[in-house]
Amino acid sequence: MDIIDTKSMSKDDILRLLDRASTIGPSDALSGRVLGLLFFEPSTRTRMSFDAAVKRLGGDTVDMGSVDSSSVQKGETLADTVRVVEGYADALVLRHPREGAPRLASQFVDVPVINAGDGAGHHPTQTLLDLYTVRENVDASLGDLHVGIMGDLKYGRTVHSLALALAKFGARVTFVSPPSLRVPENVRTELERAGVEFDEVEVIDGIVGSLDVLYATRIQKERFPDEKEYEKVAGEYRVTTETLESARDDLVLMHPLPRVDEIAPGVDETEHAHYFEQAHNGVPVRMAVLDTVM
Amino acid sequence: MDIIDTKSMSKDDILRLLDRASTIGPSDALSGRVLGLLFFEPSTRTRMSFDAAVKRLGGDTVDMGSVDSSSVQKGETLADTVRVVEGYADALVLRHPREGAPRLASQFVDVPVINAGDGAGHHPTQTLLDLYTVRENVDASLGDLHVGIMGDLKYGRTVHSLALALAKFGARVTFVSPPSLRVPENVRTELERAGVEFDEVEVIDGIVGSLDVLYATRIQKERFPDEKEYEKVAGEYRVTTETLESARDDLVLMHPLPRVDEIAPGVDETEHAHYFEQAHNGVPVRMAVLDTVM
Amino acid sequence: MDIIDTKSMSKDDILRLLDRASTIGPSDALSGRVLGLLFFEPSTRTRMSFDAAVKRLGGDTVDMGSVDSSSVQKGETLADTVRVVEGYADALVLRHPREGAPRLASQFVDVPVINAGDGAGHHPTQTLLDLYTVRENVDASLGDLHVGIMGDLKYGRTVHSLALALAKFGARVTFVSPPSLRVPENVRTELERAGVEFDEVEVIDGIVGSLDVLYATRIQKERFPDEKEYEKVAGEYRVTTETLESARDDLVLMHPLPRVDEIAPGVDETEHAHYFEQAHNGVPVRMAVLDTVM
Repeated sequence: MDIIDTKSMSKDDILRLLDRASTIGPSDALSGRVLGLLFFEPSTRTRMSFDAAVKRLGGDTVDMGSVDSSSVQKGETLADTVRVVEGYADALVLRHPREGAPRLASQFVDVPVINAGDGAGHHPTQTLLDLYTVRENVDASLGDLHVGIMGDLKYGRTVHSLALALAKFGARVTFVSPPSLRVPENVRTELERAGVEFDEVEVIDGIVGSLDVLYATRIQKERFPDEKEYEKVAGEYRVTTETLESARDDLVLMHPLPRVDEIAPGVDETEHAHYFEQAHNGVPVRMAVLDTVM
Repeated sequence: MDIIDTKSMSKDDILRLLDRASTIGPSDALSGRVLGLLFFEPSTRTRMSFDAAVKRLGGDTVDMGSVDSSSVQKGETLADTVRVVEGYADALVLRHPREGAPRLASQFVDVPVINAGDGAGHHPTQTLLDLYTVRENVDASLGDLHVGIMGDLKYGRTVHSLALALAKFGARVTFVSPPSLRVPENVRTELERAGVEFDEVEVIDGIVGSLDVLYATRIQKERFPDEKEYEKVAGEYRVTTETLESARDDLVLMHPLPRVDEIAPGVDETEHAHYFEQAHNGVPVRMAVLDTVM
Repeated sequence: MDIIDTKSMSKDDILRLLDRASTIGPSDALSGRVLGLLFFEPSTRTRMSFDAAVKRLGGDTVDMGSVDSSSVQKGETLADTVRVVEGYADALVLRHPREGAPRLASQFVDVPVINAGDGAGHHPTQTLLDLYTVRENVDASLGDLHVGIMGDLKYGRTVHSLALALAKFGARVTFVSPPSLRVPENVRTELERAGVEFDEVEVIDGIVGSLDVLYATRIQKERFPDEKEYEKVAGEYRVTTETLESARDDLVLMHPLPRVDEIAPGVDETEHAHYFEQAHNGVPVRMAVLDTVM
């Protein structure tokens, strides 16, 4: 069983994984099993949390290390690399800058392949841990929620998958972004085709009071033609204690981290701050995934 | 017990390791034991398969990491480095650009040293996994085989050790290469001194039908004065389904990988393709080695 | 319990760790536990010996890897990084170029933080393994010893902590250095305030015969305005068999390694050479620390 994207997973598949994550604890379930880590681009947290997850289950990892020092440098194809490495491991975690690489890889090997991010494509375990964090912190079912997603919605791969997954469960989604960073046309089309209720606004003030969840994303300086423009946008979409004054007491504030200026440090002390917990949730969610596929 | 080269191992030593490799499975044999990985130059597969091997046996590794960030940068001698690291591990795997480095290292430490490649020198676990792959896939004994070794035979460290090891078992070896990439004089002399039957040809066509094993090697672009010359040679020594038309059905095709153009992808689908299996055999062979020396 | 420096540890705390180190052996005490390694600057030995230590106790590590490829590059604060990583590990080992970073980090996380070197600050497990090596090799109690500390005493973080720790136990310390590399004013003040007996000399000849321990340190070429000056100093403070001619038979010679020219290779063969053993002692001492805090 491969984990390539959440789009192709059924609601039941997803809920089964989230349920498993909420009960899973340290064990010897994967004792003697080896997980291959193939990160064709760096992603420290994702790598570390997969590493921690398999070790919590008594298993271990073998790590390809950085691409600079690997056979990829000698002109080897992805297909060859994964066919070699499958001999060293019982499952492969693949991070690749090229969209579609994990699916391609999965066609060449017999061991399970887990997509740990493929360029502008998917990052299913991130989506799962986002859903998990929402679910663990709200009383309502996912379908009854109003989720605000704010920031860079154009380039933010994370939020596209999350929006589609939330849509699958019937949640109402409001996108909050400057016009230049709106959700791209193809994602909007996909959401509409899925019959999803969503709206788009430019400022959060009017809706913050009705949100169950506010998901802020990183706004990357390098997307802007000049620094002034960046600073203006970053300032307007920064979450501060003031932003949250009209929020409900139980609003769940999330962020995929690392943050730069998107959330003011003062917010960390509030009950809304769930982004560190969200990062930590990578471990039980990936434990559940590994326990299921390995 | 150190593993420095296969040249100094007896036939019985080698066969004992190959026999062990063919029966070894996951166990707790090395539980609590730590293998030190010292790669003074990168070699992803060798490192990963040693890593997988020790973990399959319940042991673990400590890895020096890249030389850039190590004490070597501060001017430390190899002798000092290994004398420090032996305190952290029960055996050392050493990859070094300088020929003879592993033997030198072994004189300074009490723990076993395994040579994982020393420049133009040896790479005994590669030779062992090559022999293992041959042995697992032919019905005849090694002494009755006709093995073709093709490609860059001048710089290919792998094939020199393999040729000498095959010679030790009495196999007949035919070298196939362009004149500019012939087996060097000193290797030929060594083979002659060992009383080995070998011949050299420039094209494979005449002999492919009589081969039990064809071992293709990587032809490195950087060995050629100009790209045109490289492309001409690479084209002539490329193994395709056509090359194999007159081959016996049970011809075993091997390659140390990574390949670039030396074997056409279409060959992967044939029964001749044993190069991925060969790479995978690094794990049981290294398990057998570790189980023996640690 | 955090391990930030030895200054704030009582004599009893220290002795308890040293006693534990002298009896600790491989076990499953940390089975299922994960140690997070956060090296914001490289330190191969310290990293490897922590890695070996936790694995000897049946635990495992997750490693942030190099800073170049981590979220730090994206502008993340240290506080955020450690708050994320604490979700992956049961304790954190932190190496950081900035003095005070480990203490800062410890204020943001609930798991124990172990300082593995913070710039010009402290490196408590190094100090502990130095003390351990002294203690294992002398018959007298620490308070009765005469310890010479020689070389670069201005920039050598290691020796400042060691001198203060020895002082705590009442040892007599003699510093041996050129005027340009004397112990800095603030360390001298601290020693005086602690009521410590110490003196400073420029040459070792007059005192070598009375020493129980001689601790040589690395003299770094880059501290000198020109190479000639470096060579002159390095030559005068180099320990050779001649230096040790008037030493007592049981003089314990130590060095934090890596050495360049500070100790002549011929000294390695003498009974005085304890620097490799000292490096190896990093493992039991760190095992004792981990066993205590995790």
